[in-house]
Amino acid sequence: MAETVGFIGLGIMGKPMARHLANAGYDVVIHTLNRETISTFTAESNKFIAASTPKDVAERAKTVITMLPDSPQVREVALGENGLIEAMGEGSLHIDMSTIAPATAIEVSTALAGVGAHALDAPVSGGEAGAVNAALSIMVGGAESDVERAMPLFEKMGKTIVHVGASGAGQVVKACNQVMVAVNYAAMSEALILGAKAGVDPEKILQVLGGGLANSRVMELKGQNAISGKFAPGFRVDLHRKDLNIAMNAGKTTGVPLPVTALVQQFFEALTVAGRGDLDHSSLITIYEDLAHYRIGQDLEA
Amino acid sequence: MAETVGFIGLGIMGKPMARHLANAGYDVVIHTLNRETISTFTAESNKFIAASTPKDVAERAKTVITMLPDSPQVREVALGENGLIEAMGEGSLHIDMSTIAPATAIEVSTALAGVGAHALDAPVSGGEAGAVNAALSIMVGGAESDVERAMPLFEKMGKTIVHVGASGAGQVVKACNQVMVAVNYAAMSEALILGAKAGVDPEKILQVLGGGLANSRVMELKGQNAISGKFAPGFRVDLHRKDLNIAMNAGKTTGVPLPVTALVQQFFEALTVAGRGDLDHSSLITIYEDLAHYRIGQDLEA
Repeated sequence: MAETVGFIGLGIMGKPMARHLANAGYDVVIHTLNRETISTFTAESNKFIAASTPKDVAERAKTVITMLPDSPQVREVALGENGLIEAMGEGSLHIDMSTIAPATAIEVSTALAGVGAHALDAPVSGGEAGAVNAALSIMVGGAESDVERAMPLFEKMGKTIVHVGASGAGQVVKACNQVMVAVNYAAMSEALILGAKAGVDPEKILQVLGGGLANSRVMELKGQNAISGKFAPGFRVDLHRKDLNIAMNAGKTTGVPLPVTALVQQFFEALTVAGRGDLDHSSLITIYEDLAHYRIGQDLEA
Repeated sequence: MAETVGFIGLGIMGKPMARHLANAGYDVVIHTLNRETISTFTAESNKFIAASTPKDVAERAKTVITMLPDSPQVREVALGENGLIEAMGEGSLHIDMSTIAPATAIEVSTALAGVGAHALDAPVSGGEAGAVNAALSIMVGGAESDVERAMPLFEKMGKTIVHVGASGAGQVVKACNQVMVAVNYAAMSEALILGAKAGVDPEKILQVLGGGLANSRVMELKGQNAISGKFAPGFRVDLHRKDLNIAMNAGKTTGVPLPVTALVQQFFEALTVAGRGDLDHSSLITIYEDLAHYRIGQDLEA
């Protein structure tokens, strides 16, 4: 008989991730707020089984993955009414792959431990393309034995899977990742606007800086977006803004002042204020174009 | 008969650069403030010829390279008493490879044009290792014909040589480079301190973040320095601080606000205030360690 796994949250990321599990032979018990998505999936393959609530999922599957927008949704699904906790017990494992606050990950893990269940926080990076290509990076926090148990599932969805520490550590590392990406965007943006407004061809700036210590993955993959003014996501500003809030709160909790992240976070707020929350995060450069009253690329385009 | 080239400024960078030219067969007319260095060089090879002033160098060589600490020194050597300008005329070429203000590069170039001489600004990146291995990146501003004339010299000292625009453009791109490197250090530092103080092994943070969009050359090459507390230069804080001042001034001149660079520049000032101006620039992380009252690496070590 095929193994069964639960999957809650079939959004842009969750859809391809759940499909990889079904394609690998798992029976996947699904739940999501959009009823049409449920119908689509159950029509698509008999490996998908609809469940009505998170509790219902946990009754039918000992291992349940969640892929949700933010901390409140994970708390609600895990610990709320008809939540996972009402059906989980000894031998149950909750794997949360959402990006949420480390403190919430620990809160959920602790609550589930109270009924004998286990939990992992396992946020991902790599975006929609990484999810579709089963090439996600997965940073996992929790107990070693639980990570071993989850590994076959992770291997169906990701390529780089690293156990980074105890419960909450996965979310901490994801916050670190989002801090570094955002600030690297600021670095590239300030360099490009300084050079371009001074009259240097921004293509040459990318070429020269890419050959030395200044280079970054952000510049390699998103430099052309930044100078062309084409900002189709990719990864949306509003999601990165949410992740920077998580990082700032984690800094407050841990006692780590993050002055540069705080400033860059304010520019992400400004992007949303300017109506650019749905653009790719490489559109950070437009804030600098506004400040310098100078546009490198074409008119904004989503 | 061998071609002759002048070289003024035999510091950490200038020494190996001048030696590459002599090894390639050029007669190199040298001038520098340190008399011992002059003696060492003339004793080392008869390809080195001592000159007493910049004017003296320009009298003996149609092409003169300068490699000096900052804008005032370049202005003095080029335009001051017994400066290059007193002996330069039609057919003379001044190649300044120092890192200085774009405005000063343009000032020197314009003044030399007044006596019929030409000028290039050609700052480098790659540090002492790049100079020793003739692997510098050289970003060149000036006229195409002058760049062509200088190219055989550049090829003896560097690997990546890009003509980025008119006079001053080389210095602009160098300023962009230093902005991006400094802010990428801030990005890595905030990510590492956030994760490490929250209890995650910093080695794992480097491993996971290095595999994704967060990666940077700074993290690849200097991540281990940052978490080990070993900060032997490399590139000294005080020099990077100087370069950030140049970038901020260039931003002011051009009308480009650089808020993140401004903040990071203040942290470089703080490093100097703390007596760390002679450490490698990766020591930026120590400012965050101070702010968070938490040390990732060992005690500071130069």
